[in-house]
Amino acid sequence: MAVYTRIGAEEMAALIDSFDVGALVSAKGIAEGVSNSNWLVETQRGRFILTMYEERTDVADLPFFLGLLDHLAAAGCPVPATIHDRTGAAFQTLSCKGRDKAVALIEFLPGVSADRPTAAQAHAVGSALAGVHLSALAFAMRRTDAMGPAAWLRFATSCAGRWQEIDARLSAIPDHLARIAAQWPADLPSSVIHADLFPDNVLLLDGRVSGLIDFYFACNGPMAYDLAVTHAAWSFDSQGRAFDAALGDALLNGYETVRPLAASERAALPVLAQAASLRFALTRAYDWLNTPPDALVTRKNPVEFFNRLEFYARSGAAVFAP
Amino acid sequence: MAVYTRIGAEEMAALIDSFDVGALVSAKGIAEGVSNSNWLVETQRGRFILTMYEERTDVADLPFFLGLLDHLAAAGCPVPATIHDRTGAAFQTLSCKGRDKAVALIEFLPGVSADRPTAAQAHAVGSALAGVHLSALAFAMRRTDAMGPAAWLRFATSCAGRWQEIDARLSAIPDHLARIAAQWPADLPSSVIHADLFPDNVLLLDGRVSGLIDFYFACNGPMAYDLAVTHAAWSFDSQGRAFDAALGDALLNGYETVRPLAASERAALPVLAQAASLRFALTRAYDWLNTPPDALVTRKNPVEFFNRLEFYARSGAAVFAP
Repeated sequence: MAVYTRIGAEEMAALIDSFDVGALVSAKGIAEGVSNSNWLVETQRGRFILTMYEERTDVADLPFFLGLLDHLAAAGCPVPATIHDRTGAAFQTLSCKGRDKAVALIEFLPGVSADRPTAAQAHAVGSALAGVHLSALAFAMRRTDAMGPAAWLRFATSCAGRWQEIDARLSAIPDHLARIAAQWPADLPSSVIHADLFPDNVLLLDGRVSGLIDFYFACNGPMAYDLAVTHAAWSFDSQGRAFDAALGDALLNGYETVRPLAASERAALPVLAQAASLRFALTRAYDWLNTPPDALVTRKNPVEFFNRLEFYARSGAAVFAP
Repeated sequence: MAVYTRIGAEEMAALIDSFDVGALVSAKGIAEGVSNSNWLVETQRGRFILTMYEERTDVADLPFFLGLLDHLAAAGCPVPATIHDRTGAAFQTLSCKGRDKAVALIEFLPGVSADRPTAAQAHAVGSALAGVHLSALAFAMRRTDAMGPAAWLRFATSCAGRWQEIDARLSAIPDHLARIAAQWPADLPSSVIHADLFPDNVLLLDGRVSGLIDFYFACNGPMAYDLAVTHAAWSFDSQGRAFDAALGDALLNGYETVRPLAASERAALPVLAQAASLRFALTRAYDWLNTPPDALVTRKNPVEFFNRLEFYARSGAAVFAP
């Protein structure tokens, strides 16, 4: 869900005029992004996405997120570049009903997100992800992973004693967490990672990746962990029960056509894939228990990622065998 | 609020392919329309709005609504034409999670809706509305007004005894209703009317009306009643307290540059404007009392139109004096 905040037509026209992109022709609030408001904006000179950052995005992180987009776009990665305003700023602050909100204008990229990805699409996404990892090595800014191992314990502590409100099986999470944290490998090759590359964050057109979007979890981290997140996000049915080896293999092969994995990374994939599944099971469980029933968001079921966690714990060694 | 139903990328591509509009390039669910799901769709050949009709629209009315759009567009009115599919059908039926839902593809029109209309904009809207009325005289299909006088009593009966749950002032509504129904003029010149031409149903670009949209209340009715609805919708602040005579006059003048009112219509405007205000006060009161607090829609306050009703009852004769 999105478009939490309304912008009047007159404010929108004035805002768009502060960028050097031609006069406003159309603006439609779009139902995209779970934590920000977004508009598809058309001007005399092109189309753009206007994003207003709501509570979940820390404005202090915007220079990192938007600078990363510019860095990657300049390097030829299929990501939307930030449109800077007439003063050169990458984002602005609007006053909406007495609250300041940051807004940024980024390129509109064509393409649609796959609901049922094919192996060819997974291969293309793997290659695009490797391209981002290599290009981002030269990006100078840094951001730690707010959803990394340090955060898991905080989420798990918050959910303690309440797992059965969602599903009794989830009470195994603390044991998994302890084991995975102990096995979390140090010193894997690191870059900036997307950390949330689900199919709805990938735009596809004519068989190629036309856009990687929603970099608002991007951070420094092990590149192989990002690949593991993507593997968990792309290779299962929505319930996280049926693993599709053809999708997973295509993703890995596509990645390695651009950036071959080191032996240490390949060896770490089983635990990294469990860690990735744990991360989403934990944040979804936290959101499930802390989202008011009348909130305008659809709660995502943490069990879908607990199922993946159990799958990787059981079969990860075979799935990622060299 | 909108986009109640999800359409997967693969289903969307197949659906768009059933129209002869080129291959799908992009599809974004948009937050527009209160009772239907809408997507802004881009293909290789243009942009379109895909509408999926949810509960509030009776599929039996679609031939009227969509035929009207085609009729008006062919006559040169700024309304989106319906894109017929390869078989010539104006709408299709999709099966979504076991329920059949009608979908239609219509032209995308540029422009933005005014939040704070100017007199020049109100003048342009008056002219465009008159053009619709004249062009629709030759439209052969008929639809009775489901929100007309016959419905008022039903809504009022449903709200009886509960007005004070919203605002005690609303308990004057039944007396107003009886008086207005008794004064409702017969035999005014009739055509197809929009019946809901609020500013958010008008797209403006460079000072002209680039689009009149959302004809899903359109019906046969007195043209002067449609003008009165538009007058009530455009000439007040959002609370319905401050009447802006410059806006109202500009609307009437714009209308009469295209279609001068008959003396009988001009004389009827005070009661028609009260009727228009009553209609929205009643339907909003009904929705207010019958919308679950956790519904994904923002309840609109009926008092905003009760204020207009009282204004027109008090000052309508002066406002609409020839």
